[in-house]
This record gives sequence, structure tokens and C-alpha cells, in this order.
Amino acid sequence: MKFIINIILLFCIAVTVKSEDGHELWLRKSKPSAVNIASKGTSETLNIARQELTQNWQGEPGATITLKIVKDKRFKGDGFKLETTGIQANTELGILYGVYEMLRRQQTGQPVSIVISNPSYEHRILNHWDNPNGTIERGYAGYSIFWRNGKDSLTITEQDKKLWTEYARANASIGINGTVLNNVNASQNMITAPYLERVKAIADILRPYGIKTYLAVKFSSPSLLGGIKTSDPLDPEVIQWWHGKVGEIYSIIPDFGGFLVKANSEGQPGPQDFGRTHADGANMLADALKQYDGIVMWRAFVYSPEENDRAKQAYLEFMRFDGMFRENVIIQVKNGPVDFQPREPFSPLFGAMKKTSVMAELQITQEYLGHSIQLVFLAPMWEECLQSDTYQEGPGSTVARATDGSIYPQKHSAIAGVANIGLDNNWCGHPFAQANWYAFGRLAWNNKLSSETIADEWIRQTFLPEDAKEKGITSGDWQQKFLVPVKEMMLQTREAAVNYSMPLGLHHIFAGAHHYGPGPWEAPRGVRPDWTPVYYHRADTLGIGFDRTRKGSDAVSQYQEPLASQFDDPETCPDKYLLWFHHLPWTYEMKNGRILWDELCYSYESGVLQVREFQKIWDQVEPYVDKQRFSEVQSKLRRHYRDARIWKDACLLYFQQYSKLPIPYDIERPENDLEDLMKIRLGWSHHN
Amino acid sequence: MKFIINIILLFCIAVTVKSEDGHELWLRKSKPSAVNIASKGTSETLNIARQELTQNWQGEPGATITLKIVKDKRFKGDGFKLETTGIQANTELGILYGVYEMLRRQQTGQPVSIVISNPSYEHRILNHWDNPNGTIERGYAGYSIFWRNGKDSLTITEQDKKLWTEYARANASIGINGTVLNNVNASQNMITAPYLERVKAIADILRPYGIKTYLAVKFSSPSLLGGIKTSDPLDPEVIQWWHGKVGEIYSIIPDFGGFLVKANSEGQPGPQDFGRTHADGANMLADALKQYDGIVMWRAFVYSPEENDRAKQAYLEFMRFDGMFRENVIIQVKNGPVDFQPREPFSPLFGAMKKTSVMAELQITQEYLGHSIQLVFLAPMWEECLQSDTYQEGPGSTVARATDGSIYPQKHSAIAGVANIGLDNNWCGHPFAQANWYAFGRLAWNNKLSSETIADEWIRQTFLPEDAKEKGITSGDWQQKFLVPVKEMMLQTREAAVNYSMPLGLHHIFAGAHHYGPGPWEAPRGVRPDWTPVYYHRADTLGIGFDRTRKGSDAVSQYQEPLASQFDDPETCPDKYLLWFHHLPWTYEMKNGRILWDELCYSYESGVLQVREFQKIWDQVEPYVDKQRFSEVQSKLRRHYRDARIWKDACLLYFQQYSKLPIPYDIERPENDLEDLMKIRLGWSHHN
Repeated sequence: MKFIINIILLFCIAVTVKSEDGHELWLRKSKPSAVNIASKGTSETLNIARQELTQNWQGEPGATITLKIVKDKRFKGDGFKLETTGIQANTELGILYGVYEMLRRQQTGQPVSIVISNPSYEHRILNHWDNPNGTIERGYAGYSIFWRNGKDSLTITEQDKKLWTEYARANASIGINGTVLNNVNASQNMITAPYLERVKAIADILRPYGIKTYLAVKFSSPSLLGGIKTSDPLDPEVIQWWHGKVGEIYSIIPDFGGFLVKANSEGQPGPQDFGRTHADGANMLADALKQYDGIVMWRAFVYSPEENDRAKQAYLEFMRFDGMFRENVIIQVKNGPVDFQPREPFSPLFGAMKKTSVMAELQITQEYLGHSIQLVFLAPMWEECLQSDTYQEGPGSTVARATDGSIYPQKHSAIAGVANIGLDNNWCGHPFAQANWYAFGRLAWNNKLSSETIADEWIRQTFLPEDAKEKGITSGDWQQKFLVPVKEMMLQTREAAVNYSMPLGLHHIFAGAHHYGPGPWEAPRGVRPDWTPVYYHRADTLGIGFDRTRKGSDAVSQYQEPLASQFDDPETCPDKYLLWFHHLPWTYEMKNGRILWDELCYSYESGVLQVREFQKIWDQVEPYVDKQRFSEVQSKLRRHYRDARIWKDACLLYFQQYSKLPIPYDIERPENDLEDLMKIRLGWSHHN
Repeated sequence: MKFIINIILLFCIAVTVKSEDGHELWLRKSKPSAVNIASKGTSETLNIARQELTQNWQGEPGATITLKIVKDKRFKGDGFKLETTGIQANTELGILYGVYEMLRRQQTGQPVSIVISNPSYEHRILNHWDNPNGTIERGYAGYSIFWRNGKDSLTITEQDKKLWTEYARANASIGINGTVLNNVNASQNMITAPYLERVKAIADILRPYGIKTYLAVKFSSPSLLGGIKTSDPLDPEVIQWWHGKVGEIYSIIPDFGGFLVKANSEGQPGPQDFGRTHADGANMLADALKQYDGIVMWRAFVYSPEENDRAKQAYLEFMRFDGMFRENVIIQVKNGPVDFQPREPFSPLFGAMKKTSVMAELQITQEYLGHSIQLVFLAPMWEECLQSDTYQEGPGSTVARATDGSIYPQKHSAIAGVANIGLDNNWCGHPFAQANWYAFGRLAWNNKLSSETIADEWIRQTFLPEDAKEKGITSGDWQQKFLVPVKEMMLQTREAAVNYSMPLGLHHIFAGAHHYGPGPWEAPRGVRPDWTPVYYHRADTLGIGFDRTRKGSDAVSQYQEPLASQFDDPETCPDKYLLWFHHLPWTYEMKNGRILWDELCYSYESGVLQVREFQKIWDQVEPYVDKQRFSEVQSKLRRHYRDARIWKDACLLYFQQYSKLPIPYDIERPENDLEDLMKIRLGWSHHN
């Protein structure tokens, strides 16, 4: 009888790494070395900059760092210059950003060389879909950090202020400089005095960190709040009401950022209710905000249930107004033409609106990407969108360059991300969902950053064990055994999600309402067709996919050549967009020689196998991560895997009714019956 | 754009094979050829024999078959001689068995050569655990075919008679010649006049098919029915009561078979309640039955909650009475010493009781082997038991030979199987569960048959498509594409079940009551310890397994040498019984070099992967099987797979709490959390 002891010893490491609840995000405390700071001025922002240096210095002990405000035309906005000996910037906020960059480089082991860093976008904004009652639309991390339910909901506590300070610091550390405090499906109450008092308190906390506050407004507020008979944007009384309201807001919050507006979209009121246009509506509000330097972010997410192809409608509605918006209006366009699907081609509005400020709206919260259950790193999706070439001003006219001022002389540049932040102790529900908040901020500052760089930075800051040395974990060990595999995993997660849910250009085949699990069979009576999966996948005995070619809805023509022709022909259309643009026979031969049905089967299968692999990767890093976060992620990956399989089974068994073809026999068989799958409703309970 | 059509054509075959509901079992109708029969006599049994030949002849058209009753000492009991030209036997029943053998050979394509076939056992008996209210203990195929619930429950209908006739025919076709009509946990009412009338009606139907009826009796019947103060087997009044009752039964059913008794076991009354022994009780009943040639089958399934090792108790209780039982008593011993587990070593009573008729009790109904949900072919388990060498009279003293009269001059030889039959249209709940009924009958007739032969026969009779020729399926095709893979699958299923539920000698770690899913954590207060999983697996931080060595409970010493020493030493104990006999450290090194914990993990994993493979095999035979049975089996395999994974996750995650070792990383990770698994209760609803 023999015993093998080594394995036990190795395994025991697992339980010794200190537990963490994730509340510190990527800003985990570590013992600082001494540092001397040379700087002038005593503003709150500079004080924060100095405090951050003092409390987090990991560079040469006793070094002297000079913080200097200069006038240098090489710096754009709050850009800065980093040197080993200090930071220069045109603004105090630039100094603070430089400090965070310096500390990040120290923590991630990057050299602090001379570099000038300028933000890609002037406005880098979080959109919180938080409701006055504390719930969050599409929020999966608990209740709102800004709004509370019930009695004393507007009382401001020390705990509120502490949390808002932490929130502000986290955002500033990655360059975010604006936040919309409430849901785009806005309550008119948000711009009434009691709420504005709370907005002021929030703004006061956020201000030293360089973050402006914005509000989403309801377009019918003049009627609802002002008692005016109309909210017609051309009505003098309405105009006057808005001017008054804006004045009131600025009297309370002098540096208020402006309004975000969802109008004539999914039942929200808007200028079309009064026979006016989106331009009429946006410009009226812009005029009211102009004297305060406020901006209007006007969403292009509009579609009518009567039209034949929802994917075309934002373009059709907004292109006609190009050049007609005020300078302080920015049109906020979702990355894709439909609605934050796991994969969409970029919205054809990007680059096409040449005389208008256009900003991208990305979704950080994982509405269609697994809520806070599935581990999906979104940077690759955003990178894919930002680097997509619109060809609008020739090759290289990427979405990034078409929105950041590189190509068009737009007055404002901006980017928005729908936040995934709630009261959960770890902010985002899933430990890895923090990476998406981080990635949005980093891309907003520098839209050329690669997903891999962002993942690398984030992992190092978030997971490097504080007590590694004591536990005998060398830096090389940790990089090889944790950083490399976890980074590799993160970079694959979004493609995996596409594979097991909506591969080959399929989209919007979620079960209704919750947008978590599969529902390709759903087409309930009384629900508008363009909210049902069958509208989008169009599976029948002949084939599958939405025909958006010139012979179909002709959505392809909203793209600049050569894209229009490329998308129009299934032989040249990228496989990843194939069923977005084409309805093809089940036996259509793919570029790799497989028939479409088989390719669909192998795609779903590969997504499931990828998640299974993620489980293996994660289980193996156990010795290198604290117990609490290890267990949370392990448990979530288990459900992720189960649900990925449910996606595969549901879609393959449902579509097989039409394809009438066998699932290739080298694929693992479905483990559920279709009729059972059609009964389950995954993920209704978000905290499950 | 190209189309690949062949695949569609191939797949279309799938929907064309005629649907079957399985009610015809292995006796499916096919168009007969003409046959001439030469025979004398007009008994019901001979009429059946002639009718079977006429209606099912698949041999040379117009051939003449002679059925002849002879007196030939080479034939044992209802044995027979088969020739191409006819059948000889000493009894009419022998002729009928010969006819079924001849037809089976025709249907399975075996040559009808000259062969003498004698039954291994005199009594080949089904035990129905059917209750008077129509429910069936451990039944997973609907209600009883003999007993009905509610009003008019004893009325005999034409439908009853038709079903009983089909039942009798199916049993006769595989050589079964006895049936116990009610549960061993017996109701005293079963031997009262109203029930005996129904027993008579059943017996009348079964008689021509050579099947005797038996009843399970409650030992306290004299008190309960006769109003006597005691049921003491030595009490004259009690003895007289039983003699009277037996006389009454035989006056109604003159060829009644006898009694099956579960006494002093799991709360049932018995002779020990009155200070008497099992021998006292059995002999008293045997005396009452003797003049009618009736027998007593007395179960050895006894154990007390106070003793330290339940596995030892039947042996301890019964060995002392060896040689003390009447000639018409047979001791009925479960195949293993505990209780029909997926794998047990044989009961040490086999071969050890040398002066007593001992019969094996096998369980056809899948109480611990997946109910009617999991596809588990049990012949390999029974073959393993029957071919186990007890060494009691030297090498070659197998369980088969120790019970069939080959070694000991026992008066009676017999074998029993707990039936899996119910009112479900396909009789057994799962299409493949029919194979277990079939296998029991075939092994009872010939205990040397291999599992492979039985599976081969059964598949050919059960699945060969009637319309194969019309559909272009050649015989070679069918054998290669259906018979071979399905047979291979069947032969692996039992080992797979052991692997994913209780590998390496683990046993009885089911969730309580339903005996379907895993419950290794269960040890509820107030439940006797030997009904709880923790009693059996004994997992702790030091190791796992039940120590039955000489230093432990010493159960090994109930086995004859060299088995006792072989089982006592973990180095020589077969791996499949390792944790049955030993409590070993988690890091114990197995014969293959792995540590015990790893081996356990790989065993569970392999069981799951086997079921996944069964799914693939089954899905691929779709073109060769009717739609109804294809879909049923496919659906059941899906749940089988899900539940196999739940077994694996539950056991590995539960045991890992003690082993504190990682699951090897080349194994697929658990997909459930232990705390969730501990909440689910699998299989409570049998028809799920």
C-alpha cells in the first residue's frame, strides 16, 4: 500500500490564498512604498491625485514625482504626458488620469516610459438604466446604487456617499468622465426638485473625480410636469418650459452634463407624437442647454412594428436629418442595427452621417449575453465593431475613426456604455463582469487598445494574489498558470457565446422578456412580430435566415460599397453574418464544404465544448486564486455550461423540424426533448 | 450554390419503418408460410402448440412437422428434442417449448439442427410484487395486470383474460412455468375467497401454457383471518388453520404451486415473533402443502438493524438450519448479500447450504438500476452471478451449479425473478426492459447461455423490421447497422450503470425511498442506519469503503477459500469489489498505478461517457427502427444521460469533501453544485 503525497500538498495551496469579495475591483489595496510628490495647488482633484500616489505607490521607494499643469497643445482635453519622474497635463483631471496610468503600469509590471496619452473621445459616459424605485432595467447585480426603494428613498446617507465615492474613483481610474443616472425609459419625476437634490449630492461626490452627471428625460415632461396641453417641441410654451427646467437644473448643478433622450421608441413619447421630427425634438432641447454648455444625446434606437425590416429603420429615420442637428446634439447609435445581439454587423449609420456628431452606444450589462451568470468578456465584440471598416471615406474609415473626430469635423465626440453596476457586493454580479466595465472605460479612452491588452491589464490588477510571495507562488508561476490561461479563456468567451446561442449571423432568437435562454419557437399572438424570434430566423422547410439582400429587404444597400455587394452575395458575405443577410437552403454549401445545416450543428457544438473547456481552465487555477472568487466563478461556469447545452439542444431540435436532416453523428447528442425545452423559462430570476 | 441531396434521401428512410408500440414483445406477427402438422391428442396445450406453428411458420413452405410425446430418459422434466422434421418430448408442455424453440430459430435465422434441450431449473418463476390495490412495489410500468383498484376490482373481464393469455404465451415462449401473483409484502386478503376466485380465473388461463400460480402469504394470517390469538407455527390451532386454508386453496385451484414467504424481514411478521425459527415456520407451511405437491419458497432476505454488518446476516441466520428444512422447502436467496445493488459479490449462502434446496432470486424490475428510465440490460449481471465460483465443492462450484442440482442432490431446483411487468402498453415501461424479462426466462431455462446470445436473439425477434425488404433494407445492412451496434450497446449498459453510480464496490448510496438518484449524503435521524448511504460508503477524511476484512466485520470469512483470503487482501481483491470489502485511503494505489480517488473519478467519468456513446449509437440506428420505439428510446436515453451526469457530480463532489483532492483535470468538470444536487429528488415520479 503506497501513498502519493505530492498531489495533496499541491492542492493545499488552493485554500490558502486570501478570500476576496471583489468589491475593490481592479483597485485592490497593496502595501505602498514611500514616494515624494512635488506639486502646486490644493484642489480636490489634485488632492485625490496625491493621495492615490501616496497610498498606492509601487515604484522605486523614495522616488520623487512631479505633477505639473502646463499649456501644451499636444495634449487633447484631459490628456497627459507620463514620464518616470512625473506627469504633465493641461488640466487637473489630466494629472489625475496620469496618476492612475502610472499606478496601473506599476501594478501590471509595465515600464513607465515617456508617453503622451490623449483620450479618443471627449465624452466617455456610462448609461445607468436605473429606475427611481431602485430597480434596474436589464440589471443583474442587484438594485441601483443611486436610487432606493421605499420610505426615505431620497435621504442621503454616509453609506451612499462612501459607495458613490468608490464608484467615482473606479470610473476615474479608467477615464470615464460622465454618467447618466437614470433609465432611458425615463420617469418625468427625475427632473423634479426632490430628485434633483439627490442628483446634486451625487454630482458633488463625482465632481472631483472629473465625472459629470447627466439625466435621461421623458419627452412629454412639459405635459406631465408643467401641466401644458402639449409637449410639441415647436410650441412656445413647451420651449419656455424646457428653458425654465434647464435653468433650474443648472442652478442646482452648475456643471450638469445634459440630457439623454429615448424618443418615439418602444412606446416612449417623442416629437413625432406632435407631427414633428427627431431633429425638431433634439434641437429644441439643445437650444435650452446651449448656454450652459450642456449636450443632448438623442438615441437613434427607433423602429416601427409596421415596417418590413427592423434592421433598416434607424438609418431610414435619421439619415434624412444629417446636417440638421444643432452642434450640441449627439446622435447615440447602438453598435448594431437591431439590439445588442451577441453578434451584429455595425450599424450603417456609423460613417454615413457625415455632418452630425454620432456616438456609439455599447451595452456593458449582459442583456443578451448571459446576464451575470455567463462569463462573457465583451471587449472583443466592441473591438470588432470599432474596427469595422465603414468605407464611407475610403478604406480605413472604421467605426472608431468615424466617431472619434479623426475623419469628420464633428463638434463633439463621445461613446456610451450601458452600465452593469448594482448594489451587489462585487458591483457587477459576476466577478468577470467587472472586466466589461473596465474594458469599456479603457476603450473609451483609447479606442485602439486590443482586447488582449485590456484583459491582461485587468487580470493582473484584479487577481494577482497579494500574499503570493508568502505562499511560494512566483511571478512566473502565476503568469504561466493563471494569467495566460485565464486571458486565453476570456478572449474566447464571446465567440463561444455566439456559437452556442446565435452562430452564423442568427440573431434575436431569445425567449421573450428575459433575453436569457433560447426561444426560437416563440411567436405569441398579440406580440408585435419584430419582437419574436420567428421574425428573425425565418426557418422553414426551405431554409433559414433573414433575406436582407437586394432581392430581399435590401438592408445591404445601407452599407457603403464594397460592403453592400460583399454582404449581398452569400459567397462573399462573411460566414459570421451569413444568416443575418441571407435566407439559405439547409443544404447550402459553406466555404468549408459542409452543408449549412451541418455547419450550424458544429457551431452550436463547438460553443458548448468551449464552455466545457473554460470549466477545466478555471478549475485548474484554483491554487492561484482566493477561495471566494474561485467558488463563485466555478459555480457560475457550471450553470453557464448547463445553459449552453440547453441553447444547443433547443436550437438544433427546433430547427431540425424544418431541416429534416440528422445532427452529424460525431456531435454529442441532445440531452433534452424539444417539448421539455419549450416549457422551461431560463433565468427569470436574475440572482440564480 | 450547390445542394447535397443524398443525405436527405438517406435520412428519409427513418420515417418509413412501420411504428410499433412494443406490445407484441419478442413475438411479433409475421406472415406465415404453410406447414403440415402431424400429431395426436387434443389437449389445450397441444392445440396451442399447433396453432403457434400454423400462425408463425417461417421455415420451408409446405413442410411437415411431427409432434410426438415419447418416454425418453434423456429428457428432463419438460425438456425436448428438436429435429428439422419435428419435436419429441415426454410431456405436452415439452412439445410446446420445442415449438417455441423451433419458431425462435426460424425467426433469428439459426439452423434447426438436432438438439436436446433440458431446463436448468425445475421451477422458473416470476415474482410479481403486485398489491391488491393494483399498485406494484418497485414497479415502473403502470399498474398490476392481475389486480385492479377501486370498485369491481375483482370482476373478471374479457380484457383481463386477453391480457393474461398474452402474458402466459410470452412466458411460455421463454420457458417460464410459474408465477407468484402478489407482493412478498403480502396482504392476508390474498388468500380469502374473493381473491382466490380471481386467482382461479388467472390459473385457468395460465394452465394450458404450463404456468403454475403461487401466492405470497402473510405469516400472521391465522390471527388476522382466523381470529386465532397467535400465529405461532408450533401452535396446533395455527397448524390446523393453515391445513384448512391450504385445502381450501387446492379445492379451488387443484394445481396451485405453493407459497412464497417473506418472514421476519423489514417489519413483516414471522416465526421469530413467537420465539420460533425460520425452519419452524417454513416446515409448518411445507407440511400443510406436502400432500398437494405444493412448495414453500422461504426468503433468506433478513437482517436486523442492530447488527454491525447487514451483508453478513442472511448467512448467520440461515446456515444454522441447513439440513433442517422439509424437502418441499426452497430457500430463496437474493443474488447478493445486501439488496439487488448494481454490483454485489454473490451471496455466500450459495453453495454453502449443502443440504437444503436453495434458489436464486434475481430482480428483473430495475429498482436500483434506473427504473424504466435507464437502458440497462441485466443479463450480464446475472451471468456474472451464476458463473461466480463458490469453491464450496472445489473449483467450478459456480452459483449456477450449486443451485441447479448439478452438485447437490436437492429435491427441488428453482430460480425466481422479480417481474418488471405492468399495464403499460409495452408491458415493461422501457422498450429495452423487455429484454430483461426475456433474459430471465432464457437463463432460467438454460443457465449457461451467454448474455450476448440472449441479446442477439432478443434484438432479432424484437426489432427486425417487418417491412425491411420493401424499404430496401437488406438483412446484411440491418445486422451491420442495427444488430451489431445495438447488441454491443446492450452488453455495455450494466457496466456503465455501475460506473456512473456505484463503481469499485460502492453500494447502496441511493437517495432514500425511490432508489433512483444519488444520495451519498443521506443519513436522516430516525432512519435505521443500515438503510442510509453513509452506513455503506463510510467515507471520511481517511478514506472510503466498508471494511469487511477479518479485521473489520469479517464478512469475508463467510466465503469459502481461496475467496475469503482473496477478498480479504486489497491487493488480490478484484477492483470491482474493492470498496465492498475494504476501507482504503484516498491515496491508496490501485493495480493500474492510479490513486483510489483518481480511479473513482475516472470510473464515474467513464460511465457518463458510455451513456453519451449509447445516445450516438441509438441515434444512428434511426433508419432501421420504427418511429415510435425510436423516439421513446431516444428520449429515455437523453434523461439517462442527464441523470448519469447527476450521479457523477453528486458522488464526486460529495466524496471530494473528504478526499480533499482535485478531480483529475482531463475529466469533464461537474456541472452542478453539491448544494443544489442535495436538494433535488430524482425519479419520485416513475412515469417521468
